[in-house]
Amino acid sequence: MNDHFDTLETRDPEARERAILAQLPRQLAHAKAAAPAYAALFAQIDPAAIDSRAAWARVPVTRKSALLESQRSARPFGGFAATGWGEARRVFASPGPIYEPEGRANDYWRLARALFAAGFRAGDLAHNCFSYHFTPAGSMLETGAHALGCTVFPGGTGQTEQQVQAIADLRPSGYIGTPSFLRIILEKADEMGVALPSLKRALVSGEAFPASQRDALAARGIAGYQAYATADLGLIAYETPAREGLVVDEGVLLEIVRPGTGDPVPAGEVGEVVVTPLSTVDYPLIRFGTGDLSAVLPGTSPCGRSNLRIKGWLGRADQTTKVKGMFVHPSQVAAIVQRHPGIGRARLVVDNPGGADRMTLHVEAEGDAALDAATVVATIRDITKLRGEVLRRAPGELPNDGKVIDDQRKYD
Amino acid sequence: MNDHFDTLETRDPEARERAILAQLPRQLAHAKAAAPAYAALFAQIDPAAIDSRAAWARVPVTRKSALLESQRSARPFGGFAATGWGEARRVFASPGPIYEPEGRANDYWRLARALFAAGFRAGDLAHNCFSYHFTPAGSMLETGAHALGCTVFPGGTGQTEQQVQAIADLRPSGYIGTPSFLRIILEKADEMGVALPSLKRALVSGEAFPASQRDALAARGIAGYQAYATADLGLIAYETPAREGLVVDEGVLLEIVRPGTGDPVPAGEVGEVVVTPLSTVDYPLIRFGTGDLSAVLPGTSPCGRSNLRIKGWLGRADQTTKVKGMFVHPSQVAAIVQRHPGIGRARLVVDNPGGADRMTLHVEAEGDAALDAATVVATIRDITKLRGEVLRRAPGELPNDGKVIDDQRKYD
Repeated sequence: MNDHFDTLETRDPEARERAILAQLPRQLAHAKAAAPAYAALFAQIDPAAIDSRAAWARVPVTRKSALLESQRSARPFGGFAATGWGEARRVFASPGPIYEPEGRANDYWRLARALFAAGFRAGDLAHNCFSYHFTPAGSMLETGAHALGCTVFPGGTGQTEQQVQAIADLRPSGYIGTPSFLRIILEKADEMGVALPSLKRALVSGEAFPASQRDALAARGIAGYQAYATADLGLIAYETPAREGLVVDEGVLLEIVRPGTGDPVPAGEVGEVVVTPLSTVDYPLIRFGTGDLSAVLPGTSPCGRSNLRIKGWLGRADQTTKVKGMFVHPSQVAAIVQRHPGIGRARLVVDNPGGADRMTLHVEAEGDAALDAATVVATIRDITKLRGEVLRRAPGELPNDGKVIDDQRKYD
Repeated sequence: MNDHFDTLETRDPEARERAILAQLPRQLAHAKAAAPAYAALFAQIDPAAIDSRAAWARVPVTRKSALLESQRSARPFGGFAATGWGEARRVFASPGPIYEPEGRANDYWRLARALFAAGFRAGDLAHNCFSYHFTPAGSMLETGAHALGCTVFPGGTGQTEQQVQAIADLRPSGYIGTPSFLRIILEKADEMGVALPSLKRALVSGEAFPASQRDALAARGIAGYQAYATADLGLIAYETPAREGLVVDEGVLLEIVRPGTGDPVPAGEVGEVVVTPLSTVDYPLIRFGTGDLSAVLPGTSPCGRSNLRIKGWLGRADQTTKVKGMFVHPSQVAAIVQRHPGIGRARLVVDNPGGADRMTLHVEAEGDAALDAATVVATIRDITKLRGEVLRRAPGELPNDGKVIDDQRKYD
């Protein structure tokens, strides 16, 4: 089968793992040498000592909130970029604002692979309805389409009637954009009595893409595939004709960690998506915490792509909340657990019976480990400055949903 | 002085003329060979016979209205393009709709030269407020800035407060966009109490840029320069620090013709801007009538650029009007004049004394040539199917404003 973007996709997983482990110390060394923020953050880390996943798991995770704060005190990129004006091709602004550089490398955001899996090929015309203004989505998909050898119509957002007319006149074979805007365009075409038979495929992103929407597109002859990408990282994972989860991009290392920590969770458990682009020179983010929740989907894709698969977007990991006026962070819950080796998984449940905030730490004890609730209560007070109760749960009893703080308060 | 984009700008004008005359037959041969519409239009023209401006002046002018009609009957480019999906980098839609391909050549639209003259240099950050969606303006300026070695922030249109914030945070040295949107951004910054001291220069286009606006920008420390470009052709002419008219781009042949014809007017006379890109492979427009009026500005620019200068935009050439319910085109006025060698310049004045439409052809007789008004009236009826009177004017008496049809009707 010749339906792969390159031979990396079908590598023996052990060969991929060896290549990743060989690249991690190089990429970390590059980040340390070229980006001042990483020089400081990794001052005590010797890249040469990163020789295993266990060693890698001790490299600090950088979360989006930290990046935002760094950028505020050091414009434009908070010391995390290895590029500047004249070297970067473009610079973007995402809500925050948070600024993202785009390097001059071909297919910088690595979206060509996802477009290929969705059926886009050289010689296609792609109608791109992501915005080109401020945020990088439009450019991400366009540079990927160009790398594949497609011509791009930059439709952007809005102007629905003109989008219909351009599709009718230019006859693109594929749509790129959010699934909701594609639905709006198709419904407007129905209303105008205009057929759009040229559209055979779609790469959608930026929103949920449930099976019902995929089926509705299929009924119109459009095969829709989704991609998971972020403004900081570019492509993370993409759907393939196998339709089983999303396959991880060959250009990144993807880890699922316990929210608030850098600790990988067991395979299959829901946690935060942490990503390291393996060879991005201009913006070498290392263990970047996306704030998104997902989980590894066990097994291998029938499409022949041998990389790790994930289940898609399962929510947001940043469960920071306010209790009695004080912030409580997932990293504080992780710190409590760390002081008590007897605790396996834990979840801080916040409710307000009678209108008053209450915190209860639900803990799964590991094996038969003894667990003294009173000392855990003391740790909770020490770390959060708040009073909390402790409730022991059976191993495996807490739901696998990535939640570390579960806010159940009601205000009616 | 090292303040030129390249040595083409300061060539001996005779060397430029020789280079243009050598290129015209090649470009015409390419258009004939690669674009079916030109193969038909130029069937009787031997490119090798194009050895002078006089010979070139007999090559038919293609006007935007004709292009629009050709595109309607043969999507996407009406047979005028030598490119297709996969070869073109982008395709755009301008109001009409009329579609424009963008080739993969570096600086395809040739805007780098105008940006350079406006002071943009490698290493600059340029804040680009032309839209990237549908129309090519955003891409035109961005590809030019990339060719110069600038980084681009794609601000696009709207979102004024966020534009101010991005300029304050990223500190671009230059703005690109319409002059009116720059004024809106600067006034919003005043209102927000945000200083934007990084902005030192601006390349503006798409609207009139009167001296009053240029002075208002200068008072804020921003040197504003204008460029004249169209969606079909890219850069046509650009302002230089000499501030005397606009210097013609080195990549085009610019002619000023009598509206409705392909006949060059004497230097200094107002007429329609007709442009031939000299080496555009993908979309080899030949003698493309822009519909804009301008005139040659005599003399040479003190900035050292030796190319022809024009006065800037002086109105629209397409003066097609309706008289007693019948369309009258400038080309019909030209046809009347052509049948009477005694006529020099002519202008069809339309008025409506007492509420009834009336046509009067004002003619300047050449030298002492005899001119029989009755036969001219017969020609008017023959060509326009309408009755018209003839009024003889002294040579030089008709105003130099490019008007061929002057509609003076009043409806109150």
